[in-house]
Amino acid sequence: MADILHRIGATTTPERVYDALTTVDGLAAWWTEDTHGDGEPGGVLQFRFPQGGFDMKVLETRPKELVLWEVVDGPEEWLGTRVRFDLKQADDYTIVLFRHEGWREPVEFMYHCSTKWGTFLMSLKQLLETGQGDPSPRDVRISDWH
Amino acid sequence: MADILHRIGATTTPERVYDALTTVDGLAAWWTEDTHGDGEPGGVLQFRFPQGGFDMKVLETRPKELVLWEVVDGPEEWLGTRVRFDLKQADDYTIVLFRHEGWREPVEFMYHCSTKWGTFLMSLKQLLETGQGDPSPRDVRISDWH
Repeated sequence: MADILHRIGATTTPERVYDALTTVDGLAAWWTEDTHGDGEPGGVLQFRFPQGGFDMKVLETRPKELVLWEVVDGPEEWLGTRVRFDLKQADDYTIVLFRHEGWREPVEFMYHCSTKWGTFLMSLKQLLETGQGDPSPRDVRISDWH
Repeated sequence: MADILHRIGATTTPERVYDALTTVDGLAAWWTEDTHGDGEPGGVLQFRFPQGGFDMKVLETRPKELVLWEVVDGPEEWLGTRVRFDLKQADDYTIVLFRHEGWREPVEFMYHCSTKWGTFLMSLKQLLETGQGDPSPRDVRISDWH
């Protein structure tokens, strides 16, 4: 098993980060504009991109602390993996520890997704600090795979 | 053991990517301006940042294909780990498959370094495509840890 890890900090409150991870409007403002569904525990979120998409079942949320999803539909490599955001405060920053865990093999697509997650988390930081993120379809291009 | 993975693609030739990974001037233009040493096999490269730095022994290079370093000085978590860049062509792009391998534990510093590597690889892409990277000390700030 292999995991993608990231850490960003945004000069904002844990409440605002939590909202950006649990509401459709929040998620649409940094990950993909084509976001639908329900971000509460037991709900399913649908994220769509020009190239495809993912359905995430919300396994657990704890206000200001944790958001945990399981991939229930999407590319074969993602099925059954989990996406986890742990939040904490550090002085003026809210820190997001991100983990996309449970990849069966470190395939080339995992390398790509790691870098894409990094740029999307920078989009989240930018949204929280400036009010404007870079969600799909105007996300940062990193390669031929977009 | 845990690895940091990334994948970027730049619209340039493998030769130019290889130069940016093996010459002091190339490395100084995307990772840190304070770069010294020798990027040829058996050489040691010194990378310095306001917060500290790393010494990398060059284990292997293959023109247009591979650069492999071992960390011989730096933070305890980095010692003995390896940094690997595999290059290949895909249509108009040169693809860089990046791996920082052999972390003993997925400590919080590893989460941070994963995101930093992502932004530095985007700096490499930008350098190759526009002639201007974002090396330290004017690198992209991602958190309280810079």
